[in-house]
Amino acid sequence: MTYCAGLLVREGLVMIADTRTNAGLDNISTFRKLHQFEIAGERSLAIATAGNLSISQSVLSLITEGLPHEHGEGVETIYSVPTLFRAAQLIGRAIREVSHTDGKELEDSGVKFDVSILLGGQIKGGPARLYMLYAAGNFIECGVETPYLQIGEHKYGKPILDRAVNFETTLPVALKLALISMDSTIRSNLGVGLPIDIITIPRDTQLASIVHRIEAGEPYFHDLRERWSAALRAAHSAIPLPPYGPKP
Amino acid sequence: MTYCAGLLVREGLVMIADTRTNAGLDNISTFRKLHQFEIAGERSLAIATAGNLSISQSVLSLITEGLPHEHGEGVETIYSVPTLFRAAQLIGRAIREVSHTDGKELEDSGVKFDVSILLGGQIKGGPARLYMLYAAGNFIECGVETPYLQIGEHKYGKPILDRAVNFETTLPVALKLALISMDSTIRSNLGVGLPIDIITIPRDTQLASIVHRIEAGEPYFHDLRERWSAALRAAHSAIPLPPYGPKP
Repeated sequence: MTYCAGLLVREGLVMIADTRTNAGLDNISTFRKLHQFEIAGERSLAIATAGNLSISQSVLSLITEGLPHEHGEGVETIYSVPTLFRAAQLIGRAIREVSHTDGKELEDSGVKFDVSILLGGQIKGGPARLYMLYAAGNFIECGVETPYLQIGEHKYGKPILDRAVNFETTLPVALKLALISMDSTIRSNLGVGLPIDIITIPRDTQLASIVHRIEAGEPYFHDLRERWSAALRAAHSAIPLPPYGPKP
Repeated sequence: MTYCAGLLVREGLVMIADTRTNAGLDNISTFRKLHQFEIAGERSLAIATAGNLSISQSVLSLITEGLPHEHGEGVETIYSVPTLFRAAQLIGRAIREVSHTDGKELEDSGVKFDVSILLGGQIKGGPARLYMLYAAGNFIECGVETPYLQIGEHKYGKPILDRAVNFETTLPVALKLALISMDSTIRSNLGVGLPIDIITIPRDTQLASIVHRIEAGEPYFHDLRERWSAALRAAHSAIPLPPYGPKP
């Protein structure tokens, strides 16, 4: 399994992803799922992937090596597309290309063509954006009402985002909430695990301010997990007992 | 969707279920999913159902009207089985009977044979037990290490149970935690909704102490939801900001 989330708030973008991959429960490895594509000051993009690793790696190779330009000559890459929307389209085309190449044989082997991707960032002259792409190559864009998108094992980490994140949340707080969301997921699903990769890109800078891998045992994240567990226990203790039943 | 949970702690059993059913998002109704079978002081059982409503209703009818005794004459019902284990076996047989009767036609219509059931309670002379039955009629029993079982839309409500429930949790606190778990699920999945049914059965009484339906707007549950939201926000506020990034 995988858990990745992107939060697009007024101050900028947070992207987070775990690194655990498994082909069966007895074949577990660490692979990077959060990738940075940056030309400092001109464009800063982050891409997180979930689903079949061979598909997502092929997609990343295609958008880096380039696909034939649809309406012109030469190739288009993630470093040459002029807008975020065009970047999402490029990734969608790459997904379809991989589906065309590998899809039938995968399905013949009983493997579903399963991939989903978060694309976030900003290209100079355009707005900061966050997209989620599906296995068909289509995509949706994150809005200000619900300023986050998730892929993979998204349910355990959704309650905290549902309740605490809005567009005016500051970038450091958004990062903290993303880490709490990741913690809830790790706690409830063994298939999601440390290390965790994080990227933050302040709006209108086209320059990541944080590109960091949180390893197991890192003091801040360890402390966050302990504090969050303690706070949850304290939170329910403070709620009165139900009036329906036997008193304690 | 549906969310049901059972918690079996030292003091007894809590069962909780929502009541929302839907055949498509534009056909939503309220149906009871938590059912009580009690002969006061002799046996007190609670059954919660998830999955296809026609299947679970047929199962409930079969265990009430009775199935032919496997090793004797006459019929066996949920009121006549001598132990909880035999009750679980009876429900399993009922599921298989419905599968035999309706399964093929359902699958021919593109409807998966989907049902899962929680059975909890106690019969005089035996221990309090909690079982989860699958669509194949097989079942597992709840243990003391993880003293709860869930069916239906279980992920949103699992983090609070994972962190807060253990076998020594008192019955009123277990009920409160079940309500928080239900609140998290309702908040994140529109397919799970009020009213909520709850049953608690103190151990060794064979007599439910609470059989209650919580309607929308009920003051205690409304207050619990507000307090829990406020507590979650306060909980993350108390955690220091990540050291990785730009300071606020």
